[in-house]
Amino acid sequence: MKKLNIAIIGLGNIGSYLYKYLNQNKKIISKKNNCIPNITYISAKNKNRKRNFKINKKLWLNNYLDATKNKNVDLIVELIGGAEGPAKKLVFEALKNKKHVVTANKALIAKYGDQLSKIAEKNKVNLEFEASVCGGVPIIRSLKEGLIANKMNKVFGIFNGTSNYILSSMDKENKSFNEVLKNAQKLGYAESNPTSDLSGDDVASKLKILSSLCFNSFLNKNIHVEGIKDIDKDDINYAKRLGYKIKLLGYAELIGKNIYQRVHPTLIRSSSYVGSIDGVLNAVIIDGNPVGQSVIQGEGAGPAATTSALISDISSILRGNIKFPFSISNKERKNLDFKDISERFFSAYFRFNVTDKPGVLSNITQIFSRNKVSIKRLVQDPNKNKSSSSIIIITHPSKDKSLNKIIKTINKRSYVKKRSKLIRIDDE
Amino acid sequence: MKKLNIAIIGLGNIGSYLYKYLNQNKKIISKKNNCIPNITYISAKNKNRKRNFKINKKLWLNNYLDATKNKNVDLIVELIGGAEGPAKKLVFEALKNKKHVVTANKALIAKYGDQLSKIAEKNKVNLEFEASVCGGVPIIRSLKEGLIANKMNKVFGIFNGTSNYILSSMDKENKSFNEVLKNAQKLGYAESNPTSDLSGDDVASKLKILSSLCFNSFLNKNIHVEGIKDIDKDDINYAKRLGYKIKLLGYAELIGKNIYQRVHPTLIRSSSYVGSIDGVLNAVIIDGNPVGQSVIQGEGAGPAATTSALISDISSILRGNIKFPFSISNKERKNLDFKDISERFFSAYFRFNVTDKPGVLSNITQIFSRNKVSIKRLVQDPNKNKSSSSIIIITHPSKDKSLNKIIKTINKRSYVKKRSKLIRIDDE
Repeated sequence: MKKLNIAIIGLGNIGSYLYKYLNQNKKIISKKNNCIPNITYISAKNKNRKRNFKINKKLWLNNYLDATKNKNVDLIVELIGGAEGPAKKLVFEALKNKKHVVTANKALIAKYGDQLSKIAEKNKVNLEFEASVCGGVPIIRSLKEGLIANKMNKVFGIFNGTSNYILSSMDKENKSFNEVLKNAQKLGYAESNPTSDLSGDDVASKLKILSSLCFNSFLNKNIHVEGIKDIDKDDINYAKRLGYKIKLLGYAELIGKNIYQRVHPTLIRSSSYVGSIDGVLNAVIIDGNPVGQSVIQGEGAGPAATTSALISDISSILRGNIKFPFSISNKERKNLDFKDISERFFSAYFRFNVTDKPGVLSNITQIFSRNKVSIKRLVQDPNKNKSSSSIIIITHPSKDKSLNKIIKTINKRSYVKKRSKLIRIDDE
Repeated sequence: MKKLNIAIIGLGNIGSYLYKYLNQNKKIISKKNNCIPNITYISAKNKNRKRNFKINKKLWLNNYLDATKNKNVDLIVELIGGAEGPAKKLVFEALKNKKHVVTANKALIAKYGDQLSKIAEKNKVNLEFEASVCGGVPIIRSLKEGLIANKMNKVFGIFNGTSNYILSSMDKENKSFNEVLKNAQKLGYAESNPTSDLSGDDVASKLKILSSLCFNSFLNKNIHVEGIKDIDKDDINYAKRLGYKIKLLGYAELIGKNIYQRVHPTLIRSSSYVGSIDGVLNAVIIDGNPVGQSVIQGEGAGPAATTSALISDISSILRGNIKFPFSISNKERKNLDFKDISERFFSAYFRFNVTDKPGVLSNITQIFSRNKVSIKRLVQDPNKNKSSSSIIIITHPSKDKSLNKIIKTINKRSYVKKRSKLIRIDDE
């Protein structure tokens, strides 16, 4: 049987899991692909870090970059992480030297995917990144193969398990953001530095990759990104009263001739499919022609789910299934004009915390009307033991820039006691 | 650019949709696969049937079998249907003559898939059948590629849109089976002869295909199949009161060292994911190692969703992605011993319609106890204006053969007014 020589670079949780899994399941993977995955080298920053397996010294490379020039390497699995530095150097060098690359690095692909894909295509090697977007959800292979027939209109969903865990725990346990975050860190559901998960940047990288696959476009930087760190318990509770949950959602969508990419907390009906996805799960919903709506759901992260994705990419290369990294030749990918969301219409949820005095409500509603935003629902709640109240407003669909203008205007008023909130609603 | 010559045989709703779709999207499909899908021939039983496109006479084959020997045909798409007759002849002949085959024919694959797969492997051509199982759900490609790393423990779900539509409409509209069926036929959700949908046979074919893929086994005929035609409004309503929905589910599962295949109406928690899938949707849940649980959901049938699946198979062949039809070489596929479910444990729902007289309840509970089935919950409801009552019993997990023994024994009693019911519960 043919064999393919593999170097695994990066041996953290994921690299270690993959290394062990490939060794333990070599026979069945060989049989399924008619080609043997043969690990010839491994390398990582720190040779002596404590790992749950013994490193075979014959496989160890002192300089990880040597893998890119070694004739006993056909495929490099990059598990270093980060858009810059060693990961970037490794992947560029590997492709230039006609090595196949498999990576779980969403930041790298979202930033340099176009350049990398051009080198891969020129050198007729694979660049595969299933593991970079929602590990346990085979979404990239489904877009590139299982759903290849389709003209996509929309892809959206929950792409970050950490923030979904935090929001759903706040909802279920009625706890504050910080309490839940601490607990998530204790349980290993949030990293000690969870910035990119909470800021929406992690979702943004994944969404950029998905939208370029859906629309046959180059990666596009025009994306609206908001994270979840301003969501508080009151927002969660008001949303619940109104029949919604708050989820951090990513959307790439074609509306008329406009494409939008956006990541932000969203009110979505509790009874909807996405509303029911709680905890660390990921869910991707695709809307295409002719398939209609398809949903893929699974564990988004963690060494096990990520290894499932890495092996699917490695298997594809074992079978010699050479494809364009972004589903279509770079010559054919388009430079689409992604639009700013300011002109897009949204229904929205507003929350104002205001001094309880006459004229406030009338001033607020006046500002809405001046911005041509019409109100669908209004709830005024006196705050307990305070001379202030909360005003919740749900609007009819209105231009995003008008919604933002309202927030800006009202925040300047002296009757505002806390920064006002604006959360978009998914009302489709 | 290379091209691949295609013959489409069978031009009903699906064949016609595919023919038009391939023509209209030839350019983008060629670009994605670096190879042109070139339709050289078409054929169908009736040339003069009314179709929504004009048949190009140059493409028409009077004898569909000629496609299997024509040197201008590389790939035959079989859309005739049925496990025997012309479809069987066509696919066998095609593979023998080294033509690739793409088919949507679940009955054929479930019955002759092993033989066909051997010929395909020997002749190094593809035999692909994504469209045979849940069209809009790319489950076969996900099992063969996206989730290739995994050792599967279980695959289950809703594989038949017609019966799911009927059961969920009975639930929502509180209508009888026959009322809903008539309506489904009017709306095109059920065929004029819906036997194979309602008997569970359609699900059984799909399940056999999925379980052989999951467990790397040959197709296995040992499968327990029950359909939905005995489910009535009262069952639906009692299930609802107890927090369940009734769904027609298919399961292939590895428990300990035993593999079971089963298709039957099942009580499943209304609040569960599968419980929430209503209407004509299909949902497939996979439980594997290392991926954990993944879910794929989408439209199960209809020309559009089926075409999405057919094009994904055709694309795979356009890219020269030659694979084993059942994921692994026939030499490596196992002859696993699938077990009868009689020894498997299930919780169950029983419904008895009995004369309202002293001693009945005590006799029933005695029969349960004699069969070592312990009762978890019992509800007795007097029927309106009648000297009879309904007794609903939910059991703890018990051997399937004991559950069946109870039904058989009690049905013989003179106090039974209507045939008793036994529906298994999914309580995992």
